[in-house]
Amino acid sequence: MVPTVEWKNGAVRLLDQSRLPDKVEFLDCRDYRTVARAIRELRVRGAPAIGVTAAMGVALGAQSLSVTTYEEFAQAVKDICQHLAETRPTAVNLFWALERMQRTLDELRALPISEIMRRLVEESQRILDEDVAMNKAMGRHGAALIHDGQTVLTHCNAGALATAGYGTALGVVRAAWEQGKKIRVLADETRPVLQGARLTAWELMQDGIPVTLITDNMAGALMRQGLIHLCLVGADRIAANGDVANKIGTYSVAVLAKAHGIPFYVAAPYSTIDLKTPSGNQIPIEQRNPQEVTSVLGGPSVAPSGVDVLNPAFDVTPAAYITAIITERGTFKPSELAERFRA
Amino acid sequence: MVPTVEWKNGAVRLLDQSRLPDKVEFLDCRDYRTVARAIRELRVRGAPAIGVTAAMGVALGAQSLSVTTYEEFAQAVKDICQHLAETRPTAVNLFWALERMQRTLDELRALPISEIMRRLVEESQRILDEDVAMNKAMGRHGAALIHDGQTVLTHCNAGALATAGYGTALGVVRAAWEQGKKIRVLADETRPVLQGARLTAWELMQDGIPVTLITDNMAGALMRQGLIHLCLVGADRIAANGDVANKIGTYSVAVLAKAHGIPFYVAAPYSTIDLKTPSGNQIPIEQRNPQEVTSVLGGPSVAPSGVDVLNPAFDVTPAAYITAIITERGTFKPSELAERFRA
Repeated sequence: MVPTVEWKNGAVRLLDQSRLPDKVEFLDCRDYRTVARAIRELRVRGAPAIGVTAAMGVALGAQSLSVTTYEEFAQAVKDICQHLAETRPTAVNLFWALERMQRTLDELRALPISEIMRRLVEESQRILDEDVAMNKAMGRHGAALIHDGQTVLTHCNAGALATAGYGTALGVVRAAWEQGKKIRVLADETRPVLQGARLTAWELMQDGIPVTLITDNMAGALMRQGLIHLCLVGADRIAANGDVANKIGTYSVAVLAKAHGIPFYVAAPYSTIDLKTPSGNQIPIEQRNPQEVTSVLGGPSVAPSGVDVLNPAFDVTPAAYITAIITERGTFKPSELAERFRA
Repeated sequence: MVPTVEWKNGAVRLLDQSRLPDKVEFLDCRDYRTVARAIRELRVRGAPAIGVTAAMGVALGAQSLSVTTYEEFAQAVKDICQHLAETRPTAVNLFWALERMQRTLDELRALPISEIMRRLVEESQRILDEDVAMNKAMGRHGAALIHDGQTVLTHCNAGALATAGYGTALGVVRAAWEQGKKIRVLADETRPVLQGARLTAWELMQDGIPVTLITDNMAGALMRQGLIHLCLVGADRIAANGDVANKIGTYSVAVLAKAHGIPFYVAAPYSTIDLKTPSGNQIPIEQRNPQEVTSVLGGPSVAPSGVDVLNPAFDVTPAAYITAIITERGTFKPSELAERFRA
């Protein structure tokens, strides 16, 4: 699997996901503004991957500073964090990663600036390495929930491409597959940006895991025919009460799953859980450009010129629809989260 | 409103819906095979429009025959009907219209062939005129179900473009609008062929009726926010028990509506009700080309080359999810259909 994001030759190298599955191309970001733009333009996406990328963006930006005092340095890094924070509002991993970089900066205040610069790069690499390790742990915990012969419905891409590697929801699929279970994935294409068609289908095919692509509106009919045994999605933010913000359409999948008695699982690392947000009602939902809906991937318009459009990038699935949340620390009911993760 | 289908200068003139909303172009079909191909290629679509077009295709094909006996003529017309019947399996209006043309042919056996030819054209025109009249009657019955200030969710296109004019579900919307009710339509884009984006949004904008386009996977989240007051769709076939086959994704909308306590209405003419089919389980579901899913409207592929795809064109919504069915004879509960419409 090609890496989603890495620190390479003094640059942040991103696999340009806006070009997949047609082209495997890399984008070398040599300054933090390019990193921010790449996040905004969905060249890298997926809550954990955004977190890792932003952390590397901070390290990159810090390296380029020419200041003499810690105070100047700290202020400039704060500005860089602020710039990166303004890229996407919903995924909490972004803010979590930026706070962690800030905390590192605070803790190292006694060191020479050149040393702090080096340590910030190390910290961002540590966030990346931990992300992969967490996903593998999540996979171990979650694989028990998928039985031999079952078909898993996914929405959007919560795979290796949404993380530093291995994936959250698809990490669980990978772990079950690696245990020798004969499983199959039905991938919602996930309009408007088609992460399911372009990314989930692609990365599963790369690994030889059977995958069938469907349009988002087919899932209900296939559930009714008994063709889906469980649903497995990622998360962009999980509130303290267990409500989950994830890609638009996740809520519909959850309602359909409940109506058909099918388990609905969310796989996400600790950094996605936002105990400061009491419920899903307080999670900001990003509204994106109407052109994502009126055309497909920047192609010609498929809708009448000037049509009114809604384009929320995410929705909130209330805890009551979620069978369990799979984390690197184990599998929990949404109602248990606040208790388990407090402090 | 431009006519969906008409008999013009000895040809069947179709508004080429595969070119909308970009281009308003007409296709003059001068032989029945061209009519059949146009139906198969979705240049004309929507159950009632397919019925009218097929009837005109029969009249067109019959006109071109050079035979001397009624028996030869009848056999040739039967072959034409058979060819047209093989275009699309799900919409029952197609078979209903072909049977009606056959019945006309039988009844006119005593007349000279040239006179039968003329009468078949007349009969197809009558089917067209009746369709518009039925839609207006449906509109009158259904408009009472939409209240001032409400927002209606539609799926696919059950509008003027799906019929000979005025529309079934959108006919009801039009009638409510013409009564002065300030209503608004949320149109599901309806992947894979985007009839909602290309056709429903277009025809409502032509009439000045407020419409907002959404992707199919947004409907659930918007229902949860209280932004949808009722759902209104068409039908391709209604079984005797009230189960409804309609565009893929209709079932998901119905399940979501029920989960949110939102009424779900189906608008369809008598010719859509198939009392010979006991339940939805017996309705054949057309599987279409995977390329409709892996690319958008024949554009470049959006999915990895060789990916496995499911592409059922329709699904079945069980009667239990349907609040009422609006027909030209009034509004009925699905369970009342068989009783009301039996001969």
